[in-house]
Amino acid sequence: MRKLANLVSELKPSPIREMLKIVAELKRNKIDVIQLSTGQPSLPVDKEVLDELIKVFLNDPIKVSSYTPTGGIRELHEAIVADLKIFGKIDVNLNEVVVTEGATEGLLLTALALFEKGDEVVMMDPSYVSYPHVTLIAGAKPIYVCEKVEEGYQPNLERIKEKITEKTKAIILATPDNPTGRVIREEIAKGLIDLSIDHDFWLIIDEAYKHLIYEGEHYWFWRYANARERTICVNTFSKDPAMTGFRLGYIYGPSEVISAIEKIKQYTTLCSNTPAQIAAIKYLQPEVKKRILEYTLRIYKARRDALYNAVKEKLPEVKTIKPEGAMYMFVNMENVLRKLNMDDYQFMIELVKNKHVAVIYGGAFGPESKNHIRLTFVGENEERLRKGVELIREFIDERK
Amino acid sequence: MRKLANLVSELKPSPIREMLKIVAELKRNKIDVIQLSTGQPSLPVDKEVLDELIKVFLNDPIKVSSYTPTGGIRELHEAIVADLKIFGKIDVNLNEVVVTEGATEGLLLTALALFEKGDEVVMMDPSYVSYPHVTLIAGAKPIYVCEKVEEGYQPNLERIKEKITEKTKAIILATPDNPTGRVIREEIAKGLIDLSIDHDFWLIIDEAYKHLIYEGEHYWFWRYANARERTICVNTFSKDPAMTGFRLGYIYGPSEVISAIEKIKQYTTLCSNTPAQIAAIKYLQPEVKKRILEYTLRIYKARRDALYNAVKEKLPEVKTIKPEGAMYMFVNMENVLRKLNMDDYQFMIELVKNKHVAVIYGGAFGPESKNHIRLTFVGENEERLRKGVELIREFIDERK
Repeated sequence: MRKLANLVSELKPSPIREMLKIVAELKRNKIDVIQLSTGQPSLPVDKEVLDELIKVFLNDPIKVSSYTPTGGIRELHEAIVADLKIFGKIDVNLNEVVVTEGATEGLLLTALALFEKGDEVVMMDPSYVSYPHVTLIAGAKPIYVCEKVEEGYQPNLERIKEKITEKTKAIILATPDNPTGRVIREEIAKGLIDLSIDHDFWLIIDEAYKHLIYEGEHYWFWRYANARERTICVNTFSKDPAMTGFRLGYIYGPSEVISAIEKIKQYTTLCSNTPAQIAAIKYLQPEVKKRILEYTLRIYKARRDALYNAVKEKLPEVKTIKPEGAMYMFVNMENVLRKLNMDDYQFMIELVKNKHVAVIYGGAFGPESKNHIRLTFVGENEERLRKGVELIREFIDERK
Repeated sequence: MRKLANLVSELKPSPIREMLKIVAELKRNKIDVIQLSTGQPSLPVDKEVLDELIKVFLNDPIKVSSYTPTGGIRELHEAIVADLKIFGKIDVNLNEVVVTEGATEGLLLTALALFEKGDEVVMMDPSYVSYPHVTLIAGAKPIYVCEKVEEGYQPNLERIKEKITEKTKAIILATPDNPTGRVIREEIAKGLIDLSIDHDFWLIIDEAYKHLIYEGEHYWFWRYANARERTICVNTFSKDPAMTGFRLGYIYGPSEVISAIEKIKQYTTLCSNTPAQIAAIKYLQPEVKKRILEYTLRIYKARRDALYNAVKEKLPEVKTIKPEGAMYMFVNMENVLRKLNMDDYQFMIELVKNKHVAVIYGGAFGPESKNHIRLTFVGENEERLRKGVELIREFIDERK
């Protein structure tokens, strides 16, 4: 019978993409929107990287227009392996790396390679929006474990333990985190590794923001020998090099998982975009990357501080943490929403319509995360970030 | 328990990708390989298209590095709609189009949107390798219907009817076809539409090669009003504009299917590569596209003729058809393989090892298509195509 698959109604449209449409509509009407909603860096791709790409376009048009091997160009694999050695002090083999269309395809491929009907996948509430959806696409069931502002949005090992069953196939989480900006603490990461060994499940670590850390350090799971055989790390070139529109990322993990992922990728996207792979090779040259990271971190840290200070000053009734990494601040709005008699979704819609400030409602990141909003701090300069918070204040006061 | 999903063992590695690896290995050893195996055009992306792209890289680096809407840039949708009007004389609405990472993601998304456990999907034997695999990823079952060289590899309506059951969710096929190069005849296309109405299933038409036709005409299913609500057409920019490495394509179909596909795409690749979309907009300018098509068709037709004539002359014992479209010739090698006491896979492996001619074994395209090989005629010039066939002759004679 001619109908859509049930999967279609199980999936929710991404709130970030939904907001992009609203913003695009406002912009079409020449309205200036303060964007605290997308994960889109406002910095362009580095000029040295673009120049390299243009050179290849001019000198070798056949190269840029040809398929690459499904798992990616060999020199890119070599550059990724060298990069992980320099920045993570970890040894990864060439057959433990596969190139993907951003972390989005990375998460999908990991899910298809590991999950199936009957499996349960433990994820934090809040979590990045892709995790429950790729779990559903693979036929498995998302199991949420609440993270709390009072605990600095750190994963709570006790609450996680309560949700582990014989069906638990994996735990998936991001560090630094989207949407909370928290960086996982070492003892909690080690606790997760121990759990995964005791109960024999996979750990899937979303490292999209591993280079965007303003205080503290990234916890590299692969530094721990007993974690390697069970840990898959999903990465992207969308964030620190801002190559968002190039749609490129990579996964490193145990070789049998990587080769399964490569097999599946033949039927999801065949291979990744060739120019993007050429650009990534350039970005991964140590001196290029160090220069770009230094510049980017300086700007993003100042923006993080500006947003955090503005929220502390202008919105004293909300609860949040100072994000140590990533691009986001997750704000518990319970006190505000109760007074306004609104839910988080309504708040988001009314705010963008009335004050032209775009945020994302918390409920999009997990059922217990309603009553929050997510603010992005990398997409606007410091002045506009402060202006955005002032407009949120105005909006609340006018509604009271 | 920590193991891979069963899906992984259900999928077979793509033979084309497997051959790419063998060829890459030979090339690393400085061996010249005549490539009759990939669907990679040997023409570069057009200079006017690349120049446009370079201009945007230089003038608007933020634009090229930003996400686009999930379904694609609006101007690209507009260009696709205009293009379908010019070349297909069909009216497609903007909400009936979605942009994808090549036809590969197009086929995956279509499968995820329509198929699920319990469904049967009818496909031809031979079929492009993605069809059974995306069917399996979506949890459904591929059902093969044999096409025969004696029937010009046209779909046989009687044999198709025998395979239709209450579980039939769709028929999927390509025209012009990969791997046979046949262009579907109008009365057979109409027969398929009638069947799809009588039994209420979807028609999925892979139009990757719709502009690469050397004799006859493409059958546009969407010209028939009663076919529209049930026909999804999957397209790519990899073939006629040779933008293979850019990984871009599009689907047009009923709006409810397109919006389901757009929803799923948020969790497969989020959005397509931005520079590729900019290049595609340029390619779709009517005068640019007409100029490129004219040039490309002239070269490919001469190559098709060269390969066909060489096979007729040098391999009189094989059976095949003169491909009216696409990039491939599908050759029934029954007589040869019987004498050599080899199967098609062995033939492929021994041929590339001994004579450095890369072909694809027929069994990769369907269980009944063993005893065939697929030859690509666009990847080498006429002289090398003839040389390739001569080497196949030599190989056969030396083995007899």
